Amino acid sequence: MKDLCSLRVGQDVEVIDQTLLPHRLQWLKLDSLDAYCHAIASMQVRGAPLIGITAAFGLAEAIKEDPSTPHIHASMNALLATRPTAVNLRWALERVANCARPLAESRRAQAAFECALALREEDIKNCSRIGEFGLDVLQRLPGSAAGERLNIMTHCNAGWLATVRWGTALAPIYKAHEVGIKVHVWVSETRPRNQGARLTAWELARAGVPCTIVADNSCGYLMRSGEVDAVIVGSDRTAANGDVCNKIGTYLKALAASANGVPFYVAVPESSIDWSCPGGADIPIEVRDSSELLTINGLDDSGQLGSVQLAAPDSRGYNPAFDITPASLISGLITEHGVIAANTRELALLREGDWHSTR
Amino acid sequence: MKDLCSLRVGQDVEVIDQTLLPHRLQWLKLDSLDAYCHAIASMQVRGAPLIGITAAFGLAEAIKEDPSTPHIHASMNALLATRPTAVNLRWALERVANCARPLAESRRAQAAFECALALREEDIKNCSRIGEFGLDVLQRLPGSAAGERLNIMTHCNAGWLATVRWGTALAPIYKAHEVGIKVHVWVSETRPRNQGARLTAWELARAGVPCTIVADNSCGYLMRSGEVDAVIVGSDRTAANGDVCNKIGTYLKALAASANGVPFYVAVPESSIDWSCPGGADIPIEVRDSSELLTINGLDDSGQLGSVQLAAPDSRGYNPAFDITPASLISGLITEHGVIAANTRELALLREGDWHSTR
Repeated sequence: MKDLCSLRVGQDVEVIDQTLLPHRLQWLKLDSLDAYCHAIASMQVRGAPLIGITAAFGLAEAIKEDPSTPHIHASMNALLATRPTAVNLRWALERVANCARPLAESRRAQAAFECALALREEDIKNCSRIGEFGLDVLQRLPGSAAGERLNIMTHCNAGWLATVRWGTALAPIYKAHEVGIKVHVWVSETRPRNQGARLTAWELARAGVPCTIVADNSCGYLMRSGEVDAVIVGSDRTAANGDVCNKIGTYLKALAASANGVPFYVAVPESSIDWSCPGGADIPIEVRDSSELLTINGLDDSGQLGSVQLAAPDSRGYNPAFDITPASLISGLITEHGVIAANTRELALLREGDWHSTR
Repeated sequence: MKDLCSLRVGQDVEVIDQTLLPHRLQWLKLDSLDAYCHAIASMQVRGAPLIGITAAFGLAEAIKEDPSTPHIHASMNALLATRPTAVNLRWALERVANCARPLAESRRAQAAFECALALREEDIKNCSRIGEFGLDVLQRLPGSAAGERLNIMTHCNAGWLATVRWGTALAPIYKAHEVGIKVHVWVSETRPRNQGARLTAWELARAGVPCTIVADNSCGYLMRSGEVDAVIVGSDRTAANGDVCNKIGTYLKALAASANGVPFYVAVPESSIDWSCPGGADIPIEVRDSSELLTINGLDDSGQLGSVQLAAPDSRGYNPAFDITPASLISGLITEHGVIAANTRELALLREGDWHSTR
């Protein structure tokens, strides 16, 4: 597990090109602001935490190219424009800019790079802590004590491919697997981009965790049939009242979990919480091109990457990429500080650093 | 609209090969029991009512080949084995067998064929009546009176491709379109076999009804955003208490509709009601091969039909094809006799033919 990471820093900064997974594992060198912007906008790199870390290195790269204040601002704007939903993007860019801007221009590049490196380490540590707190949640599930197989459902990809290591929603699963709990994951394929079938199933397999891919449509049936012990998902942005914005389809899983008494947890690093956003209704929903829905790519019969058109050529599609799960449907938020209820009061305590003192 | 049909009877019995839609419109001649069994099992023909009518002609064909009683029984069993869920299959076969068996062997073939023809006409009439009763439901929706665009969501395909003409869930939409109501359909793509994107969008376009394909995952978001005036789906089997078995994913839509105050109707010809089945828990769920989930076909770049593999080669998938929507989530059942509540009492009145007398 410790060897699995999605962004490595050696001579160069390199990321896995996630658009080629699971069919090709190809590392991509990022060596210009343009390359960073393209990698995020084209979803070669995706997942809210990893977008943030990648953008941090992107801004450091831009500052190396030109450390002037106007260029820092222009570069931040270029990186911010790549994806509208993930709040980590703005958070990481501000962290890097705040490190660099107070310094003389000649010292900015080094400081920015060191800040990006520190954010990367912080992400790994936070995800590991989310994993530990989430493990505690899993160990309290009824089946866990009896040594039965735990069936955890997830959506989209919130694993080590979406962060640097460990992941958010998948971190508790990896920690459980490491301590010998028999854990099995229901991977919902996550149309239209199939991040579940492509990324989550692949990364779980790399870590030796058994999993089964199901259609998103199956998730209510599985919960109603008693086949799911808990649902854990990630979050692209969480509002100050605990409403969660995550990949489209998350809301349907939360409804099904609520209707069937299945615990529904959201793994949220503090960097994904948007304190300026009072509730889910204030989060703009990214609508992506309908071609993502109407064509699909994969390996063809000859083993080549290819795409096929699924609907008639003149079909119209609509492709909102995220939805809002109201806090009332969420059993708890698993953060790097602990597991808290999804409500304004607990989130405010977390923000003020007072959360632990109230326990 | 009146020209659109899925099974035609002239010199031969012909059906549209639905596995090639929307990319090729190809009629398939059915001229042996094997051809009928293959057409149903391979889903060249699908949709509970159309499966029933096709099987009726299949049994008539088998009786023409050999009118002996043992052959009738063997042929019924062969046809019954093609698909386990649709109750119409057994219902139609019994109707044909009951026509033929009392007669001398020499007269059985003609009687069976005439019975199949009569069932086909009955299906058209019943679907048209479902359409009229459903139109009444649509006309009572708040937006309808104001002349606003009505947004109806459906799932899978329960249109004229699933019956002979009109459809069940889509019949009210066609009737509304014919009387000049501005109706627009949200077509959920219906993974894993994409009957929505492939079939429903295609057949609506043939009738000139505007529609938009969305991922199944989007349906909760659309309902929560106020973009859906009503949901209408079909049913493969309805239990005597009003629980509905339909394409996997129907249950999630019903949950989202209930949570957001969106009316949720099921269009059900009486032939889809299984009086012997007390509740949804008694309906066996067909689990289909996981290859339906892990590979997908469509038109490749060169305009040829091809398939691509979506997940890593060693991935495991699980593919239940139907789910149960409990009666409590259903606003009403639209039948050829009228719109009734989904409960044991109303269904019993319907069965006894007393339903109208109680209105």
